[in-house]
Amino acid sequence: MMEKYVFGIDIGGTTVKCGLFTVKGELLEKWEIPTRTENNGAAILPDVADTVLKKIQEKGLAKEEIAGIGIGVPGPVNEQGEVPGAVNLHWGYVNLAGDMEKMTGLRVKAGNDANVAALGEMWKGGGAGCQSIVMVTLGTGVGGGIINNGKIVTGAHGAGGEIGHIHVTDDVECNCNCGNHGCLEQVTSATGITYLANRRLKKDDRPSMLRGGEVNAKTVFDAVKAGDELAKEVAEEFGKYLGTALASVACVADPEVFVIGGGVSKAGQIILDYIKKYYAQYAFMTCKQASFALAKLGNDAGIYGAAKMLL
Amino acid sequence: MMEKYVFGIDIGGTTVKCGLFTVKGELLEKWEIPTRTENNGAAILPDVADTVLKKIQEKGLAKEEIAGIGIGVPGPVNEQGEVPGAVNLHWGYVNLAGDMEKMTGLRVKAGNDANVAALGEMWKGGGAGCQSIVMVTLGTGVGGGIINNGKIVTGAHGAGGEIGHIHVTDDVECNCNCGNHGCLEQVTSATGITYLANRRLKKDDRPSMLRGGEVNAKTVFDAVKAGDELAKEVAEEFGKYLGTALASVACVADPEVFVIGGGVSKAGQIILDYIKKYYAQYAFMTCKQASFALAKLGNDAGIYGAAKMLL
Repeated sequence: MMEKYVFGIDIGGTTVKCGLFTVKGELLEKWEIPTRTENNGAAILPDVADTVLKKIQEKGLAKEEIAGIGIGVPGPVNEQGEVPGAVNLHWGYVNLAGDMEKMTGLRVKAGNDANVAALGEMWKGGGAGCQSIVMVTLGTGVGGGIINNGKIVTGAHGAGGEIGHIHVTDDVECNCNCGNHGCLEQVTSATGITYLANRRLKKDDRPSMLRGGEVNAKTVFDAVKAGDELAKEVAEEFGKYLGTALASVACVADPEVFVIGGGVSKAGQIILDYIKKYYAQYAFMTCKQASFALAKLGNDAGIYGAAKMLL
Repeated sequence: MMEKYVFGIDIGGTTVKCGLFTVKGELLEKWEIPTRTENNGAAILPDVADTVLKKIQEKGLAKEEIAGIGIGVPGPVNEQGEVPGAVNLHWGYVNLAGDMEKMTGLRVKAGNDANVAALGEMWKGGGAGCQSIVMVTLGTGVGGGIINNGKIVTGAHGAGGEIGHIHVTDDVECNCNCGNHGCLEQVTSATGITYLANRRLKKDDRPSMLRGGEVNAKTVFDAVKAGDELAKEVAEEFGKYLGTALASVACVADPEVFVIGGGVSKAGQIILDYIKKYYAQYAFMTCKQASFALAKLGNDAGIYGAAKMLL
């Protein structure tokens, strides 16, 4: 019997997102279950196995029709699908792929959630049609995922694609969450843009619509769209840091496309324009051909990418 | 019949290096033929096919005993073993793997020479025992090769691992060969170290054994070893540029080991010490575990890596 279906699971700190897909990538059904982190998260995998097996029964599927289960987790995952530890799930070492295979009798693959989301965007999102992409998630932090020739670049210590911690400046006062100083994340995440804007506002008393109101990534880019000169300066600074860093990333990974996602990317095309301006200036010759796209799958990128790992 | 042998070929602008290996990686025989670049390099592949077929005959090998032929070339190579063009070989588009398979009846794989050398150092050189390495070649330029889980990161435009063109400074007067400004290569290649030393010497008239003599990467590191303070300042600058850049590379590729080769690396362990000092300062937490090693295979890295592509 031909394989027709595949499950994509994205385990987060509070909920587990689940998707049933066709092997062509059509999302047939999407649902969530809570992530039970008590007792070192001992119930998480049994809960996932249970919801998958119930769905198979409910839909009347034959196991031979199912390519397997792909799972993304917030932590490092090695090639064998083992997790050395995942703080947000309260996990120590877990043999994720092995345990799930035993519980379900299905083939299982596992990966880090940021890398898996990149794979999802490559399959059905902003990088569709490409085989080598760099996904950049501009949220509270800056996450990344590198796909080379269709395969996730995991790295030796699970830090492949941790581009938020590239050192980009000696010119910030405080430390990054990682303990270093001057990381990309400190100046281009949502928090980082707020920091840049507040620093610029303090520098002098040039008028700006940002003064007196709430300052965050959204208000900054709204002000840019409204023609606010001070906000534009902040956007240039953001673009220079991120564009230059992505030019460095291109010297390592050389993607076809950079896919930009996360909350900050909701500002739209204008974000890409500021990044591309500086990327074009600093990128190596052949890498200048790379294109830039907004992420398309939002919170579903994880389940798409998880499913794709099996195919 | 079991596969016992494999050929590794490294095509350079003037000579083609050839190696016959056992599949375990023992180099049985090594020889060279000239690279005939006339007529758009039309003779290069027939010459290689010819020397391989002759060696098979001379040794009395059966084709079934041979795993195949791996070939490194100075230019981009895609996953199908096609070369869009290679200036030093006077090649336009060449279907390298396809043509060689037809000419020899053997399985053929091809890759970019810098990436292939990295694979060689991973197999039998400074990165032996590892699966994820970054190879840095400090010669006239700065070359790089990234191996992730045993596979070369080629990139979409053949620029994977072109780490010499990471932008590291706005503080150099001249342009890089690539057309950009402030590339890693401009300050950490052999030429780059000479540039840094001459710039430092001009800054003031502090005494140094480098004054009056020849200034190059070798004399600089000889002076460092002799305790010359000015030369030490140059080495610190070199270490800061390279260590910081490799910390950025680690945020993308996260290798187990950085293998440092090329002419500059002949200065030995002292090179690694200066690089590691700044790498430790800027690397992301888990990436600090990466180790540093000197390359071991010298000019043979290419034939080792070429052979390894088949195995």
